[in-house]
Amino acid sequence: MRAHPRLSLNQATIKYASLHDALAVTADAGFASIGLWREPIAEVGLREAERLVADSGLRVSSLCRGGFITTPPGAARAAALDDNRRALDEAAAVGAPTLVLVVGGLPDGSRDLLGARTRVAEAVADLVEHAEQVGVQLAIEPLHPMYVSDRAVVSTLAQALDIAEYFPASAVGVVVDTFHVWWDPDVLRQIARAGAGGRIAAYQVCDWATPLPADVLLARHHVGDGVIDFGSLTRAVVEAGYGGDVEVEIFNQDVWDADPRAVARRVIESFDAVVVPHLAV
Amino acid sequence: MRAHPRLSLNQATIKYASLHDALAVTADAGFASIGLWREPIAEVGLREAERLVADSGLRVSSLCRGGFITTPPGAARAAALDDNRRALDEAAAVGAPTLVLVVGGLPDGSRDLLGARTRVAEAVADLVEHAEQVGVQLAIEPLHPMYVSDRAVVSTLAQALDIAEYFPASAVGVVVDTFHVWWDPDVLRQIARAGAGGRIAAYQVCDWATPLPADVLLARHHVGDGVIDFGSLTRAVVEAGYGGDVEVEIFNQDVWDADPRAVARRVIESFDAVVVPHLAV
Repeated sequence: MRAHPRLSLNQATIKYASLHDALAVTADAGFASIGLWREPIAEVGLREAERLVADSGLRVSSLCRGGFITTPPGAARAAALDDNRRALDEAAAVGAPTLVLVVGGLPDGSRDLLGARTRVAEAVADLVEHAEQVGVQLAIEPLHPMYVSDRAVVSTLAQALDIAEYFPASAVGVVVDTFHVWWDPDVLRQIARAGAGGRIAAYQVCDWATPLPADVLLARHHVGDGVIDFGSLTRAVVEAGYGGDVEVEIFNQDVWDADPRAVARRVIESFDAVVVPHLAV
Repeated sequence: MRAHPRLSLNQATIKYASLHDALAVTADAGFASIGLWREPIAEVGLREAERLVADSGLRVSSLCRGGFITTPPGAARAAALDDNRRALDEAAAVGAPTLVLVVGGLPDGSRDLLGARTRVAEAVADLVEHAEQVGVQLAIEPLHPMYVSDRAVVSTLAQALDIAEYFPASAVGVVVDTFHVWWDPDVLRQIARAGAGGRIAAYQVCDWATPLPADVLLARHHVGDGVIDFGSLTRAVVEAGYGGDVEVEIFNQDVWDADPRAVARRVIESFDAVVVPHLAV
């Protein structure tokens, strides 16, 4: 079995695998690319992670994740920004072209959504110089509006682009994740806008189905198992000029509880059936 | 105790009360207005409902709900449109100026979000003549995007207005419900747009808090118990020229399980504390 050459397995899809095992499962399943997370890298240390990634022969499509930058000025904010600079260093070390930013929700006790959004833009401004120094693109990820208060005050591609466009495209782009943006009446126009500016840093796919599970963070499904039209979204991303890896990223307790090798095979098969027909335009 | 003269208790907030009891609880608590639902009216029959409402001395701020009009052409669609015409008749009979439309999600097995949205506009077009005949305004309600696939393919005020503006404002307006629209980066501009066109048919308030409950339909809270900034939204609605009733509509199992009279008092108190300071500009 071989995966489509642009398909990347985001490590969160096989969440319980160590870095070593995730790389092995991904390479053995026939992927050429993997999306990494910081926590499994931290478990083995950055130097060892670099060695494991190099030995695997896999490309690294992105590093998840930086962000959580809505904190008001003070020590906690300074620490968050420092942590994002370390995340950029880690992305560079493992060869990830992109650091995905989940920007954070409302600070505890706050109702100031506009203020939180402004602080995201300010934080990105603070991080741009370091991103350019290490050659990693910050990728602002709009999250579905059901996460606005506790995960990400950036809910739409338009919002993410409004921030990104203050900065060079080499330093700041956006993530197009089907789960988060498929509902947006403006999504096709914003994908075109992102592509025209060279701002599509990552394209992530997974599906939406209802009823939502009790923990709405775990509501993501294999492509084809839900109601998202991957044709129109994928064609829009391709027509916008994006030629990079396409990550499958699924948070789902049933998927996490399954055998990682079976999950990897299922990702390849469903991607071939549902997404690949729309990748060549 | 007296409620603010513009405060209306939406009947869904005391869901388990019959029409008779809901009217009594609402009037006794000192409200001048109530928002009604079709099911409790159907339980007693429309003629009896008219009598009960007249005897209560209450205004009716709106009737919930029509909609579910995304069905493809055929018998089911014709039946849905007929049901909406009956709902308009009922609204007129009980003196509700407005019929709230929850437009419906994707039809079973469909991934055609754009098609479903188009059919909403076509259905509204089919209903406008009857709405004008009976003197009731159709109110398109954008629902939070987490309901897009199963409840409402209209997710934003901009979308709702794009449909409404094809028709006279007397026949088609929109609902501004804080729970559904507070996250929208464009919300203040769209409220102004709605007001400028005389399109704000209803202003409904309740709060958003996380974590969301297992059933996300029941995620609504008393104003002040969550993270919504009622100041900016309420001032925007007032400045947009809306002078009608403000409904508190809460779907929440704990609220439903409480004594309806205690709930009615809590609605008055929290509205006085959280919303009323922003009603006079």
